[in-house]
Amino acid sequence: MCAKRMGRQSLLIENPPGVLGSASIAGRKEGEGPLKRSFDYICRDAWFGEKSWEKAESAMLKKCFSTACEKAGIPPAELDCILSGDLLNQCAGSAYALRDTGVPCLGLYGACSTMAEALCLAALLIDGGAAEKVAALTSSHFCSAERQFRYPLEYGSVRTPSSQWTVTGAGAFILARGADAPYITRVTIGRILDAGITDTSNMGAAMAPAACDTLSAHFKDTGRGPDYYDAVITGDLGITGSALLKELMSAEGINLGAAHMDCGAIIYDAERQGVCSGGSGCGCSASVMAGYVLDNMRSGVWKRVLFAATGALMSPTVSQQGESIPGICHAMALEMEAC
Amino acid sequence: MCAKRMGRQSLLIENPPGVLGSASIAGRKEGEGPLKRSFDYICRDAWFGEKSWEKAESAMLKKCFSTACEKAGIPPAELDCILSGDLLNQCAGSAYALRDTGVPCLGLYGACSTMAEALCLAALLIDGGAAEKVAALTSSHFCSAERQFRYPLEYGSVRTPSSQWTVTGAGAFILARGADAPYITRVTIGRILDAGITDTSNMGAAMAPAACDTLSAHFKDTGRGPDYYDAVITGDLGITGSALLKELMSAEGINLGAAHMDCGAIIYDAERQGVCSGGSGCGCSASVMAGYVLDNMRSGVWKRVLFAATGALMSPTVSQQGESIPGICHAMALEMEAC
Repeated sequence: MCAKRMGRQSLLIENPPGVLGSASIAGRKEGEGPLKRSFDYICRDAWFGEKSWEKAESAMLKKCFSTACEKAGIPPAELDCILSGDLLNQCAGSAYALRDTGVPCLGLYGACSTMAEALCLAALLIDGGAAEKVAALTSSHFCSAERQFRYPLEYGSVRTPSSQWTVTGAGAFILARGADAPYITRVTIGRILDAGITDTSNMGAAMAPAACDTLSAHFKDTGRGPDYYDAVITGDLGITGSALLKELMSAEGINLGAAHMDCGAIIYDAERQGVCSGGSGCGCSASVMAGYVLDNMRSGVWKRVLFAATGALMSPTVSQQGESIPGICHAMALEMEAC
Repeated sequence: MCAKRMGRQSLLIENPPGVLGSASIAGRKEGEGPLKRSFDYICRDAWFGEKSWEKAESAMLKKCFSTACEKAGIPPAELDCILSGDLLNQCAGSAYALRDTGVPCLGLYGACSTMAEALCLAALLIDGGAAEKVAALTSSHFCSAERQFRYPLEYGSVRTPSSQWTVTGAGAFILARGADAPYITRVTIGRILDAGITDTSNMGAAMAPAACDTLSAHFKDTGRGPDYYDAVITGDLGITGSALLKELMSAEGINLGAAHMDCGAIIYDAERQGVCSGGSGCGCSASVMAGYVLDNMRSGVWKRVLFAATGALMSPTVSQQGESIPGICHAMALEMEAC
C-alpha cells in the first residue's frame, strides 16, 4: 500500500492520487500572455483589493485555494492537510491566506520548486495512508517579490537579459485517493546543488544544474527516458536557464528533445511583453501546471507529463555577503494512466 | 503498514521509527544555563568561525547535522531524505548547511515549530514506506534573528518583560525504521490560528492559542490525557506564553498539571541571565529535545513525552502593515515503548 523507493531519489507511488480539483489564478500581465485562456481567473487589479503587495499575494492565494475547493466539490473541512509555501519572507503569503481555514497545515520552503515539493509530499502522504485528501498550493506576486528580492518598483531598475519577471499568479491542486486522472505516479526528491553562480539576475543559471541533477536521477531511478513523456516541463528556468539545461543534459548523454518546455519560457511572449529571459516565481509553474498543463492532459493532448520545478534558494542577505546561490529541483510524473 | 488517521488532526504511527542518532549544539549563553550538561557541543565563539551571523548559523547547523550522523554511525549518503528549515529568510541557514551533502532535501517553514514539523513528517514518511532513514533538523541564532526580526544588535534596544531571547542553538535527529527507542508513536498536525496579537515582543501570546488548539486536538484524537505523559513539553512559549497556555487549557477543561514544561522557560535561568520571558527560536526546542529530553528518556526518567512545538508566523513586513501574528503548533509523542 505504500510508496516504494526507486534508486537514490525516486519513489513509485503505488496508489497514485488523482486530481480532484485545481485552480489557476494570474495577474493582468500573465492574462495578456500566450496562456491567457488557461487561467481560472485573471485579476486586473494587482492589489487584489488589498492595501499592500504582501496582502495582495495572500488574497490571491486564498482565492486560488477556495476556487480549487469549489471545483473539487468539497469544503476545506474535508481536507486532511494543506501543504503550502511561497517566496515571501516567513512564507507570509501562505500564513495569512490559510489562517482561517481550520485545516491542518504544513509549511514548506522550496523557493520556486514549491509547487513540485508540495505535490510530491502530498502524493507520499496519501500513498502512505497519512491522508486521503490534501491541498498543495503556492503563489508569487511580481510586486512583493521585486521589493523583497531586488529593488523597490519605484526605482525602475534596468534589467539584464538573463533576468526573469516574477509571475503574479497562484496554483492549487486538491489531490485525493481514488480521484480521477491525471495521477501522480512517480516522484523524485531533489538535492541542493550550488554551481557557484553569484549573479542574482541569473536565476536560470543557478537552477539549471539542480534541474539537470534531478532529471538525470529521475531517468536513471525510474528506467524511463525523456521519450517516455509527452512533455518534460521545467518550472522557471526561463530562456537562459533552459538553454543551459539542454547543454548540461547533453553532457550527461541525455537529449531532452522537443518534449522539453519551461513554464517561465511559455507564460509570456518574452519579446512583446518585455520580460527578458521569461517568467519566474513559485506562481509561475504553479499557475501553468494547474491551468495549461492540466487542460492539455484532460483534453487528451498529453498523457504523460514530467514536471520538474526548480528553486533558487537565493537569500539577498547572504548574496550580499558574496555567497553563491544554491538551487534545488523536485520532479513528479503526472499520467492519465497509473502504471 | 501505514499511518492511521485518528480524528481530525492526529495519526497513529503503526511502525514507529526510533532515534538512530541525535545532536544538540548551543551557544555560550545557553551553555551557561541550567541545561549546559545536555548539549553535545557548546560554541564559545558566536561566529562559529565565519564572517557573518547568517553563515555562523549555517556552520552551526552543518556541525549539528554531521555530529548527529556520526552518533548514528552512518554517513549522510545513507539518508533517504533531510527535512530542514529555520528562521532566516529563505531558510538560508538550512540551504547553506546542506548544499554539499548530496542528500535529497525537503525544505520546511514552520517558524519555531520546525523541529516538531520535521519530526512529524519524518515519522509519516518512514511509516508510509517512502523512506528508511530521515534526518530532521533546525537551528536559530540570536544575532541573525535579532537583526532580521527586530533591531540591529548595536542599537542595544530595551526589551519588554514578555519578550524572548532567541536561542543560539541547533538540534538534529536521525530517525530510522527499526532503530531503538524512543519511538515517535503519534503525531498531531497543527492549524494556523490568529488570536489578534499585534505585539511583536509577545510571541508567547501569539503562539499560546495554537498550542492550546493542537494539544486539545491531540488529547481528543488519541483518547490520551495529560496524565498519560510523564512530560508535556511545549516549544518556546516562554514564561508569559506558558502561563497563558495553562489558562486557555483550563478554559477547555484540561489541566496540564505538573507534567508541563516549556523549552523556552527551562533553557535559561531567566532572572540571572536577563532573558525576560525566556528563550525562543527554532533552535530552542530543537536543542532541548535533542539533548535534555532524549537524555531523560534514555536514562529512564521519562517514558512518555509529548512534544508540542509552537511557531509564531511573524512577518516583520506584514506586522509593520498592522496585521496580527498567526501561530501554529505541531505535536508528536515520543515513547520508550511503542504502542
